[in-house]
Amino acid sequence: MEVNADNFFKAAALDKPRVTNKVGSNVTLINVMQIAGLNTLGISIARIDYAPLGQNPPHTHPRATEILTVLEGTLYVGFVTSNQPAPNRNKFLSKVLNKGDVFVFPAGLIHFQFNPNPHKPAVAIAALSSQNPGAITIANAVFGSDPQISDDVLAKAFQVEKNTIDWLQAQFWENNH
Amino acid sequence: MEVNADNFFKAAALDKPRVTNKVGSNVTLINVMQIAGLNTLGISIARIDYAPLGQNPPHTHPRATEILTVLEGTLYVGFVTSNQPAPNRNKFLSKVLNKGDVFVFPAGLIHFQFNPNPHKPAVAIAALSSQNPGAITIANAVFGSDPQISDDVLAKAFQVEKNTIDWLQAQFWENNH
Amino acid sequence: MEVNADNFFKAAALDKPRVTNKVGSNVTLINVMQIAGLNTLGISIARIDYAPLGQNPPHTHPRATEILTVLEGTLYVGFVTSNQPAPNRNKFLSKVLNKGDVFVFPAGLIHFQFNPNPHKPAVAIAALSSQNPGAITIANAVFGSDPQISDDVLAKAFQVEKNTIDWLQAQFWENNH
Amino acid sequence: MEVNADNFFKAAALDKPRVTNKVGSNVTLINVMQIAGLNTLGISIARIDYAPLGQNPPHTHPRATEILTVLEGTLYVGFVTSNQPAPNRNKFLSKVLNKGDVFVFPAGLIHFQFNPNPHKPAVAIAALSSQNPGAITIANAVFGSDPQISDDVLAKAFQVEKNTIDWLQAQFWENNH
Amino acid sequence: MEVNADNFFKAAALDKPRVTNKVGSNVTLINVMQIAGLNTLGISIARIDYAPLGQNPPHTHPRATEILTVLEGTLYVGFVTSNQPAPNRNKFLSKVLNKGDVFVFPAGLIHFQFNPNPHKPAVAIAALSSQNPGAITIANAVFGSDPQISDDVLAKAFQVEKNTIDWLQAQFWENNH
Amino acid sequence: MEVNADNFFKAAALDKPRVTNKVGSNVTLINVMQIAGLNTLGISIARIDYAPLGQNPPHTHPRATEILTVLEGTLYVGFVTSNQPAPNRNKFLSKVLNKGDVFVFPAGLIHFQFNPNPHKPAVAIAALSSQNPGAITIANAVFGSDPQISDDVLAKAFQVEKNTIDWLQAQFWENNH
Repeated sequence: MEVNADNFFKAAALDKPRVTNKVGSNVTLINVMQIAGLNTLGISIARIDYAPLGQNPPHTHPRATEILTVLEGTLYVGFVTSNQPAPNRNKFLSKVLNKGDVFVFPAGLIHFQFNPNPHKPAVAIAALSSQNPGAITIANAVFGSDPQISDDVLAKAFQVEKNTIDWLQAQFWENNH
Repeated sequence: MEVNADNFFKAAALDKPRVTNKVGSNVTLINVMQIAGLNTLGISIARIDYAPLGQNPPHTHPRATEILTVLEGTLYVGFVTSNQPAPNRNKFLSKVLNKGDVFVFPAGLIHFQFNPNPHKPAVAIAALSSQNPGAITIANAVFGSDPQISDDVLAKAFQVEKNTIDWLQAQFWENNH
Repeated sequence: MEVNADNFFKAAALDKPRVTNKVGSNVTLINVMQIAGLNTLGISIARIDYAPLGQNPPHTHPRATEILTVLEGTLYVGFVTSNQPAPNRNKFLSKVLNKGDVFVFPAGLIHFQFNPNPHKPAVAIAALSSQNPGAITIANAVFGSDPQISDDVLAKAFQVEKNTIDWLQAQFWENNH
Repeated sequence: MEVNADNFFKAAALDKPRVTNKVGSNVTLINVMQIAGLNTLGISIARIDYAPLGQNPPHTHPRATEILTVLEGTLYVGFVTSNQPAPNRNKFLSKVLNKGDVFVFPAGLIHFQFNPNPHKPAVAIAALSSQNPGAITIANAVFGSDPQISDDVLAKAFQVEKNTIDWLQAQFWENNH
Repeated sequence: MEVNADNFFKAAALDKPRVTNKVGSNVTLINVMQIAGLNTLGISIARIDYAPLGQNPPHTHPRATEILTVLEGTLYVGFVTSNQPAPNRNKFLSKVLNKGDVFVFPAGLIHFQFNPNPHKPAVAIAALSSQNPGAITIANAVFGSDPQISDDVLAKAFQVEKNTIDWLQAQFWENNH
Repeated sequence: MEVNADNFFKAAALDKPRVTNKVGSNVTLINVMQIAGLNTLGISIARIDYAPLGQNPPHTHPRATEILTVLEGTLYVGFVTSNQPAPNRNKFLSKVLNKGDVFVFPAGLIHFQFNPNPHKPAVAIAALSSQNPGAITIANAVFGSDPQISDDVLAKAFQVEKNTIDWLQAQFWENNH
């Protein structure tokens, strides 16, 4: 098979603003599904748009570290360390990023980006250390899975009453369908 | 340096029941911190105790796949797939495991085990594909980090009011300190 | 393709005693051939049964480290280091393991487990750092291969007469067919 | 040691134009030397500035694949395949990239980016699949090393007279010191 | 630290015949202990000398595949597959190699080389896919370890009487000290 | 599928001198295309012939480190370090190798071997840490690709006039077709 440049190219329009979703963000990921030539090469790239007060909500990438730089606006970003011994147990590390700053979210840790500006959007470019990093949005996986996780399990996990979980799940469902 | 068998050994008492925690479980993990000889070898093992109606609450391992077998009792287990395209988007896969059954939790996915029996404890042995797999308990990382994640971020992420988040965080804090 | 929980599950009956073989052991390995969902995930699990005075004879795993815990009985275990410089040259490291103890056999090294109790069986759970670890039983590979390794080679390797090798091979063949 | 957010952060000013070098480019790479938290995480990011008619000259990354997106201007980019069998032997694959396009340069292959616009600068963000990807600029390594590669070797390699090589090396030296 | 060419060099005299050992071979391995610059680079090289009727006895490399070419003489080589299902269970694959032939011994499998010529030596160059491949000579590890593996274990493993094992171990010890 | 020894064997005639090419060398590489059993095993081997004053011209292996030993003659070898900070920036490390010497060319760096003897050929065996290491001959990729890299790009990269590049490309083309 003769290779050609289009195997390594995507007219991804990463310069164009995207319409943001319900929580005020939009991730345009260019991975091996968009560029077949990325196969076995261990990297992908994304543009992330943030509406004013929008966020890329708490999530993890099961197979990748992320490095991000801000193109427009300001981002308040953070991640939480794992259940390791003190003083680093479930520690929340955060930073306000301005244009041109760079931040790293280590593989598998829960992280988010939030645009604190009520008037202006923000934009970032992020790169991930996998051709198919995956993404698990915590709220979607915990309260919005199909079928739903049983409220017995979640009530104890979050240490609330079952009807609180039922309400959270119903709320989430309604907002997303 | 002369190696000896104790570099590869731990009198871990994995046969002994453990006192379970607030959510009714206890994970006794034997990793490279307990057995120095595991360094670079990519594996660890754990005993997990479950009280009646106890659970190992929704969590991820940022650097490992887990394979588990039930030694005593019954476990209702599950994991949620990532934000991939339909029909596998945030799909909740679950199974009731009896003694001797084996189940796999793929690397980085949110999973849990729950003991549905109100009278009897359960016990499992789990192995993980890392000498230091890490564990991120979702509730602890999201509602119990130090310092806490700002309620602005979590309210929008979980699509509830800020005072609901404040109450969830306060509740969680009170229950764990 | 829609995934489902059965891709990650095996009713392996690892709680049930197995009939042991001629040398008094039985390894029930759950690897990627039993659970297709293990593909690329780098781990597998096994139950090992030992008859009174039975053994899992000297063997290697060409693609995995093993971590083992004793569920029932007592095991005398050991491995031999490689041809490295003194003081660690072909050093035999051994340990008596009781219920609940944990031991590590580093990748590729010759190791065994032996049940020293003449009256009671023993049981262990072992995990391996590969979805397909492989196993090479030294006696089977050296004296029981098909076809047999030439006695010229083995006589010099083991520094005995050729008829000793012929007798060892015949003995082994007879006992295994 | 207590971790903090600054271990994962760099005020890299990737939004700011850089003064370009003699060939009309400037690569600002944020790797593990700038952000210590990148250690073992396998990724880095760069801003690349191109003067009008400037180029990031033919080079390789010995330990990384690169994925690039254009922020400003237009880039003519290309890479050359290895000495593999026809029809892919030393094939030159090229593409004109506009703002928002994405292109991949597979690990270890010789590649370049050139700004064909005689009046306007261009800017790109590139990510690399290593915390320390390395860069080998072909001209610098071949004609500008310290000490210089002997002209006997280079004359035959490039199939020209030794004095042509001497002149190329002298030219290169003069232009760079 | 300034690197220099000697970090990547060894005057290894791989062209010179070596005195062979008791079983008629001598392996001169150039690994990371001889050339520090090999660190993290995943390869090593060896010259192997074989006396007439000499052998490099059955052994494994716990961390490497080996590829070998014959420089002088003839070699009868082989390896045994693992305990996999029929028709490949403990299968002995062998080949007579002449000068210039190439053969591969997959990682972790038991293999040997034997010089069938009673009058002439043989020489091979082998390369291994690790900077520190390790070597486990089966006879040395099984019958010549320090301390010795208990004869209870070995008698059952090799399905012979304990006094046969005692005699094999004594024989081996005497021949090697 | 039943495996057999021929899956791991090649009658490669690595003992036989080869006719050398225009620059006085010939690389006979035995990789996974010649021996299918090398698949996933991460190694390959080559014989390299050098005519008097011949060379294996400056090249890189995008996916492998190389370790080389001289079988016949003398070789002047070298590699150039990457664009790292002083004192190791584009440093040319070289060495004269005699029969039996061993040298390492780290993955991805530009290197060459040159036979300085005007009367005698030289021969080396090299091993590479990949089943498919790839090779990029700098002159072929830069001045001999198909189609050719534009002279605008190369003129600025090598800091010469465009007609010098045109002449170099024409020269190279004529010599190779």
